[in-house]
Amino acid sequence: MGKNLEFSSLLDFYGDMLTEKQREVIKYYYNEDLSLSEIAYNHGISRQGVRDAIKRAEEQLLDMEKKLGLVKKFREMLKGLEEICLEARKIKECNKKFIFSKDIYNCAQEIEKVALELLE
Amino acid sequence: MGKNLEFSSLLDFYGDMLTEKQREVIKYYYNEDLSLSEIAYNHGISRQGVRDAIKRAEEQLLDMEKKLGLVKKFREMLKGLEEICLEARKIKECNKKFIFSKDIYNCAQEIEKVALELLE
Repeated sequence: MGKNLEFSSLLDFYGDMLTEKQREVIKYYYNEDLSLSEIAYNHGISRQGVRDAIKRAEEQLLDMEKKLGLVKKFREMLKGLEEICLEARKIKECNKKFIFSKDIYNCAQEIEKVALELLE
Repeated sequence: MGKNLEFSSLLDFYGDMLTEKQREVIKYYYNEDLSLSEIAYNHGISRQGVRDAIKRAEEQLLDMEKKLGLVKKFREMLKGLEEICLEARKIKECNKKFIFSKDIYNCAQEIEKVALELLE
């Protein structure tokens, strides 16, 4: 099986819903980039055992995203917030170039601040 | 037990992770505002059975929020987006009152549009 990096995001969101053992194994695989054999050696289980544990964890992660769709929702949020930041910067630039309004600057600054905080 | 409306939000987020029966009972209770007795009558189970099913579902919803914290995260997003909308409207007003810049208007309009779409 090839590593699908999509699982890293799913793991960030839903990882705490897995059992401790599942989470440990799948984190080694996706976040620490260990091989099946390395994880098997470290845990004293067979390579097939590791493969099965990862497969089960992956299925659960996919099932949660299918039911809850929160990774998709959050990605849309982040995309929108980046767009908002961009427009706020354009407003500041335009304002600076043509007419300096303190009020417009303050509002654009506040929009950028809020959006950046949410993007963190 | 008193109805805690917090569960309505948790149900919106995590409801699909419950079993079909749990989801049905707790939705009648929180979203349709039926009483325990009404639900018991409709399902042909005891009032105590309904109470237990709701209690278990509530525990699962709370456990998911404790582990994933997504309702809290989304609320912060929504609060920030409302703030962004407000500031974008102020920019449009200010721009209209003092100096009409088409560019500033377009950017503020786009910010408001993106934020409103995300708020939907």
